[in-house]
Amino acid sequence: LIGASLGAAGRRAGVLAQVVGVGRDPANLQTALGAGCVDAFSTDLEASLNGAGLVVLAVPVTTALSLLPAVVAHTGDVCVVTDVGSVKGPVCAAAARAGAEARFVGAHPMAGSTRSGAAYADADLFVGKVAVLTPMAHTSADSIATVEALWNAVGSRVVTMDSAEHDRTVALSSHLPQMLAYCLADTAARCSHRERLDDLIAGGFKLASRLATSDTAMWSSIAELNASAIVEAMDEFSQSWARLREAIAAGDAQAIESILDEARNLRESLDK
Amino acid sequence: LIGASLGAAGRRAGVLAQVVGVGRDPANLQTALGAGCVDAFSTDLEASLNGAGLVVLAVPVTTALSLLPAVVAHTGDVCVVTDVGSVKGPVCAAAARAGAEARFVGAHPMAGSTRSGAAYADADLFVGKVAVLTPMAHTSADSIATVEALWNAVGSRVVTMDSAEHDRTVALSSHLPQMLAYCLADTAARCSHRERLDDLIAGGFKLASRLATSDTAMWSSIAELNASAIVEAMDEFSQSWARLREAIAAGDAQAIESILDEARNLRESLDK
Repeated sequence: LIGASLGAAGRRAGVLAQVVGVGRDPANLQTALGAGCVDAFSTDLEASLNGAGLVVLAVPVTTALSLLPAVVAHTGDVCVVTDVGSVKGPVCAAAARAGAEARFVGAHPMAGSTRSGAAYADADLFVGKVAVLTPMAHTSADSIATVEALWNAVGSRVVTMDSAEHDRTVALSSHLPQMLAYCLADTAARCSHRERLDDLIAGGFKLASRLATSDTAMWSSIAELNASAIVEAMDEFSQSWARLREAIAAGDAQAIESILDEARNLRESLDK
Repeated sequence: LIGASLGAAGRRAGVLAQVVGVGRDPANLQTALGAGCVDAFSTDLEASLNGAGLVVLAVPVTTALSLLPAVVAHTGDVCVVTDVGSVKGPVCAAAARAGAEARFVGAHPMAGSTRSGAAYADADLFVGKVAVLTPMAHTSADSIATVEALWNAVGSRVVTMDSAEHDRTVALSSHLPQMLAYCLADTAARCSHRERLDDLIAGGFKLASRLATSDTAMWSSIAELNASAIVEAMDEFSQSWARLREAIAAGDAQAIESILDEARNLRESLDK
């Protein structure tokens, strides 16, 4: 989804001269070609890297980690390498280990969908969204400028920060809601009166758990690679949860209303 | 929202001869009249009850509890009284205490929105949705038939159960996701690095917390009146939460994937 959408958006903006989609699934790549997301495609990674000026690793984070050494080895010093993953620390460290700190710029567009695949590509996906860049101490200014120009061209607002700060913050802003959705669905799956429950599950449950339809391999990989920050965010949530539980158990109307009102204010502010 | 939508749907289906909207806010009632949700309106409850054949209490549960004695006192023995609230036990008990067990039929349509007010009325709101009825031991068959006919006429599927079973089940299917959304927003509100957080909050967070835009007075009232069942559902969630936290903290890829996969299967099954 992200790779095909970025190809479509970058081609439309005229910022990418020639986009080659590389993957394992020819059908998905053919879909990307048919939809105008790429100019050509290949299932041969090494051959495709020959002469590339920019490589975008639009794959799950664990896949990016395993591909990085080969990508660095088969591209020249002037080739900029970037990614789009939701965890930045391990990928930046791997790029540095592979000897590509100067030409690797970690990136994370705050855009996506519960859907995967080129069939859902959308050239407008990044418009008005934040794209985070996490350059390292020795990343070259030219490399940063190249990646920044790409995200600006597709309509995003670029925000630069340290990879550790990124990972700690997205643990709360993105990974936490995902884990909540999975656990809400898990709670229903473990319910002893499932038949009745199915009759009484309505729009609210479906809305709050919709993120649980996302690709589980991608999210398992994120949970493994950003474990400590996610556990920290989960524990922060548990504190809020315990406070609300206590207020409800005590029948403390004022405390319940105060928690709900503050939460509603925060949530309403996000739509402004 | 629910009262005006039911008026609109019932009038369209021809199952309600004359709908009188009763409330405190003349502007909201005028909106309902203008949108064809009611035939007339009034802010005088007692006067409006004179000659009524069916009274639908479409108000927050605590308001229904406080209105019930007057509604029962000012309606005749042939007038059926029902409600639409998300908690059924206390309302049914209050109707019985007021001497109206025979003609009170607790009801709960599994439909709604985060929005309140007649301006959002929708005659299709109940189509294809479950409407739960919770008649008591001495509720008359005629009363049940009247309320069942109304919900069938507006397109709902009627499911009948005990009020205690209803309250325990909706605590998980409806009240739990609501409390999760409020606590997710609360966690963000308490975050010490709010400025960074706001940059990195995207669609996933907004989706998972959207229920927190709901009316807080209504949800505080539900939390108070269904406290023990909600606390039980919250504790069931906490068990799932602790299990996932443990798997992530231990870096147990297999356990994480297994929890996520099962949750995704449950969630996908709801869209079939």
